[in-house]
Amino acid sequence: MTTTDYTVTGMTCGHCEGSVRTEVGQLDGVTDIAVSAADGTLRIQSEAPLDDAAVIAAVDEAGYVAVRA
Amino acid sequence: MTTTDYTVTGMTCGHCEGSVRTEVGQLDGVTDIAVSAADGTLRIQSEAPLDDAAVIAAVDEAGYVAVRA
Repeated sequence: MTTTDYTVTGMTCGHCEGSVRTEVGQLDGVTDIAVSAADGTLRIQSEAPLDDAAVIAAVDEAGYVAVRA
Repeated sequence: MTTTDYTVTGMTCGHCEGSVRTEVGQLDGVTDIAVSAADGTLRIQSEAPLDDAAVIAAVDEAGYVAVRA
């Protein structure tokens, strides 16, 4: 199990969190997602290390900018 | 044609605007909706005067509080 943390800017509310959760949840191997608009954080649990670019692209698809924390 | 303005508190982003738009759009006779999270405003165009309580209930359903402006 791998835990990866990102800082995500631009989320303001629960809808934003939901958008990020939906997009990141579509990545292969993701088993759990904790996302906080208030803290600007995204923590992903996955079966194996994730492709950083794929995570960043998924968050971008949701409309936000992620950087590895 | 009737124009009715409300002040809506709690919206922070485009997702919030979309939620309000969806709920208010289901009211009978509504022909146009302008909603701004930044300004906290909701302007509704309708064929006839709207039931104030119905509008407030629709905005509540979306998760926000509306008061007649």
